[in-house]
Amino acid sequence: MVKEVEALVLLREELGDVLRGARRAQGRTLRDISGTASVSLGYLSEIERGEKEASSELLSAVCEALEVPMSAVLSRVAERVELAEQASAPVALPVGGRRTDVVSAA
Amino acid sequence: MVKEVEALVLLREELGDVLRGARRAQGRTLRDISGTASVSLGYLSEIERGEKEASSELLSAVCEALEVPMSAVLSRVAERVELAEQASAPVALPVGGRRTDVVSAA
Repeated sequence: MVKEVEALVLLREELGDVLRGARRAQGRTLRDISGTASVSLGYLSEIERGEKEASSELLSAVCEALEVPMSAVLSRVAERVELAEQASAPVALPVGGRRTDVVSAA
Repeated sequence: MVKEVEALVLLREELGDVLRGARRAQGRTLRDISGTASVSLGYLSEIERGEKEASSELLSAVCEALEVPMSAVLSRVAERVELAEQASAPVALPVGGRRTDVVSAA
């Protein structure tokens, strides 16, 4: 089966990369962001490494600490997930066959 | 303080709305999606209502059951979060002052 060799694209891993990238682009430390967002440093570090799921409240607090709109973070995550999907898509799946239309209607 | 009257935009609420919208646009039931995704019906219902956080694995399974790329769901969520941010933004905050550039660099 083709499905079994597909790598699962995980939201927490892409989200962690984007949050860490945003923090590093600002030259800020985990300690700075964790203090500003009132999140434990260890938990924030696990989030950035994609090892823990970020709650919606935590994501909101971290985005605020980074002074970045959550929508911008999510857009960047969506772009990265799309690239990962393309990289892991089985050859048999036509790109045009994906039902993106039903999401737009939501 | 302006901040205290801002409504917090929560990822799980926007994500729940998008997942429910995608399911309804396909005319499918909670039972159908929960069965296909191997998720309990009650849990899926709570996800759709924005009452529970979806794990990355669950989100992946639900998107697969819906036959919708996760990236399309996340793009739609990002759009909705952006609209909610605009609606809840305090007047004092200039739109141009938001640091979207640091996210793009991630």
